[in-house]
Amino acid sequence: MKTATIIGGGVIGGGWAARFLLMGWDVRVFDPDPEASRKISEVLDNARASLPGLSEVAMPVEGALTFHDTMSEAVAGASWIQESVPERLELKRKVYQTLQEHCDPDAIIGSSTSGFKPSELQGCATRPGQIVVTHPFNPVYLLPLIELVTTEANAPEMVTRAKDVLTEIGCHPLHVKKEIDAHIADRFLEAVWREALWLIKDGIATTTEIDDAIRYGFGLRWAQMGLFETYRIAGGEAGMRHFIEQFGPCLSWPWTKLMDVPELTDELIDQIAEQSDAQSGQHSIRDLERIRDINLVSILRGLKAQNWGAGALLKAQDARIDTQVAHVDDVADLAQPIETVNRSVPLDWTDYNGHMNEARYLQAFGDATDKLMAMVGCDAAYIASGGSYFTAETHIRHIDEVHAGHSIRITTQVLTGQGKKLHLFHTMYEGDRLLATGEHMLIHVGLETRRASEPGPKVAASVAKVAAAHAELPRPDGAGAAVGVR
Amino acid sequence: MKTATIIGGGVIGGGWAARFLLMGWDVRVFDPDPEASRKISEVLDNARASLPGLSEVAMPVEGALTFHDTMSEAVAGASWIQESVPERLELKRKVYQTLQEHCDPDAIIGSSTSGFKPSELQGCATRPGQIVVTHPFNPVYLLPLIELVTTEANAPEMVTRAKDVLTEIGCHPLHVKKEIDAHIADRFLEAVWREALWLIKDGIATTTEIDDAIRYGFGLRWAQMGLFETYRIAGGEAGMRHFIEQFGPCLSWPWTKLMDVPELTDELIDQIAEQSDAQSGQHSIRDLERIRDINLVSILRGLKAQNWGAGALLKAQDARIDTQVAHVDDVADLAQPIETVNRSVPLDWTDYNGHMNEARYLQAFGDATDKLMAMVGCDAAYIASGGSYFTAETHIRHIDEVHAGHSIRITTQVLTGQGKKLHLFHTMYEGDRLLATGEHMLIHVGLETRRASEPGPKVAASVAKVAAAHAELPRPDGAGAAVGVR
Repeated sequence: MKTATIIGGGVIGGGWAARFLLMGWDVRVFDPDPEASRKISEVLDNARASLPGLSEVAMPVEGALTFHDTMSEAVAGASWIQESVPERLELKRKVYQTLQEHCDPDAIIGSSTSGFKPSELQGCATRPGQIVVTHPFNPVYLLPLIELVTTEANAPEMVTRAKDVLTEIGCHPLHVKKEIDAHIADRFLEAVWREALWLIKDGIATTTEIDDAIRYGFGLRWAQMGLFETYRIAGGEAGMRHFIEQFGPCLSWPWTKLMDVPELTDELIDQIAEQSDAQSGQHSIRDLERIRDINLVSILRGLKAQNWGAGALLKAQDARIDTQVAHVDDVADLAQPIETVNRSVPLDWTDYNGHMNEARYLQAFGDATDKLMAMVGCDAAYIASGGSYFTAETHIRHIDEVHAGHSIRITTQVLTGQGKKLHLFHTMYEGDRLLATGEHMLIHVGLETRRASEPGPKVAASVAKVAAAHAELPRPDGAGAAVGVR
Repeated sequence: MKTATIIGGGVIGGGWAARFLLMGWDVRVFDPDPEASRKISEVLDNARASLPGLSEVAMPVEGALTFHDTMSEAVAGASWIQESVPERLELKRKVYQTLQEHCDPDAIIGSSTSGFKPSELQGCATRPGQIVVTHPFNPVYLLPLIELVTTEANAPEMVTRAKDVLTEIGCHPLHVKKEIDAHIADRFLEAVWREALWLIKDGIATTTEIDDAIRYGFGLRWAQMGLFETYRIAGGEAGMRHFIEQFGPCLSWPWTKLMDVPELTDELIDQIAEQSDAQSGQHSIRDLERIRDINLVSILRGLKAQNWGAGALLKAQDARIDTQVAHVDDVADLAQPIETVNRSVPLDWTDYNGHMNEARYLQAFGDATDKLMAMVGCDAAYIASGGSYFTAETHIRHIDEVHAGHSIRITTQVLTGQGKKLHLFHTMYEGDRLLATGEHMLIHVGLETRRASEPGPKVAASVAKVAAAHAELPRPDGAGAAVGVR
């Protein structure tokens, strides 16, 4: 069994502990804080809820977590030791001295330091070659980036081993080969932080406005492509060199407080353009645009499902432009199936077969069910009061394919609406072309007991009204069919 | 019908055109570039593929797009005029003079300028009060942020009208009330850009490494929370004030080239802490952590489906830790149903009823089908060669609920595997608890013709082998059932 030791708990140490544990390592913690165990277990709760679900396959069996009173006991058997104590160089150096008295000389000692260079950490150490910077980002259990900063004191074999371990626990080791204060990412974060402090001090923007300027704009871009790949696209067909030439003059303008700027020599422009070609040259600008857009659609739709950030803006927009009838009482012709969905197929609903994925048919039918439920008064307020319909059974017939960007429409017929049962038949079209049917049996439940129960009187009356109006409709083709039976 | 005029096409002007058109406005374009029509139509193609699918409801009917040879003709009837000409102040001022000779004096003239202050743009204008900065972010048709920068020359009524129009076309107008070079977002972008130029010039990092430092770390955070809300969480239970005090000393360290730093007075700390309370105080730190994590899981899983950025790392990780058998020839006991899925329920698979959403059952069953297909040799290479199985019919029985973070397992029985037909029966468990069954009829198709066809000989043989081994298994409970029939 592999063993990792965490020196210094808290949010960062706890995040490291979670990564190792959930990837099957045993984890030994040293932290003199009497609250350390509670703090780490709170981080672990968050990690257990979020990390394993990122994987489509089974995770390793979780390792064992133990707490230890001394560093010497904590490092027993550890091949990785992660130090996350406060950012004071003398404190860190003292910790390494104690660690190195007791740990395996082959163990890797990684420091979570945001800013110290590895040579500073190695300074007074017994075995400098054992110490590297492995700088993570909060939440450590979800964000893959680890800045691995090394010096010439670190043997290549040891650096390779460090990369392998980091990769094994699901991280991306970004090997920074030339040390610098604050490594790479924190240089950007610190520049932005200082700029932000000025904006607040000068009364230009509040914390909310600054955060909105990030999360509604370039923050969305940077979740999927960084600075240079994004600007390569902005340069258009002419590429990176064109972008730099276009925005080069701005470097001398007071667009930020950072006025110490390198000269844009031909050499520097060449260097950037060549690196950008090596990075992104395998994709055309058109391809990069399409990749960027489908990534952004995925991100935006994910945030929309959470009703957060840019996704909350999209939800509000839907509410503004929605022209569908809200309640069955307002439906013009209740003797016909009711239109419950009318939308475009999102870019991220297609699969390797190039058409809308089967699960997205059920997602659209589920949306149709939700809409019908809302139209009979089983809306958010009703659900909050303790009643809802759960789907018990579903039968889908896929008749024809549909592609991203095309419009789909679903009409819904109530086959039965009596007591606890709501039997629906959805039909999906693109224009007049039949795409699929969805037959669903829903059962009304009490959310407290999770058992079948009668709906409230208003919902029951609305359901009965639609069921009565739909009773005259012919039974739709395919209703009551079993798989493989025609 | 509402009309918008786009002065200056290209990527930014085209993005504006797309926003207006897809939200039902007529759009009139002026751009002397003979390539303008092609360039705008390329942006429009991207926008039509991506934007409408962000909405769960029907979008307005698209407006009419026309191109015009003169500005005077282009502005006819326009209530919004968007200027996106190159960043040269004299050029912009000339454009406004011509525009103002011909346009409706009540029309809003918005400038896409990245850096000029509105007072500079208004400088020589006939009617300064008509001109504002409305700075968008590429791709304009997907990113909602617009920096709306105004001066005292702009009447409050006009500013309100500008906000309303921007909101109507799906944007978030961030009203910057005190003008400054480069507004807000571009101050951060420019600071990061200058810092990045130094890192490249000094040989610390390449463009790839810089982009990875962004998109594998803080870029993911910034897609959903900005700088201050993120740091509020990092401050932990002690909050924003604690965070500032902890990282305050770094301001004097050379963590970035930006060394011109405001003094962290008590007044500034109070100001930030109070603004942060107003922004995020309605959520506890624990709540913010959970919101952040579910957002990150949604984003990461979205990127994973696209096999891009941090999502590509997750896919590679799955391949490394997957212990499932790859081909039916290697299954130990083929006389039993085959394990095809073994995973955790992701945080973003639950819905308003607090359990795994119905569509995610089909997603998991679809994954089980994909795995079985791969195990009989219908893998990515086979699909690339032109054959695949399409699901024709599905029957799901929801037996019991399951929640995020819990482990689910699916076993798959082949009911029929002959010729073009593959009839599967999936059973989903949490431990020994039966959650659902999924019965699926798949048809082998030629991807060229999109019609039913015989599978290749290797796939056919593998399917036949499993079907023969499963022929002795009892018919599973629920197979062949129709909705509502017991």
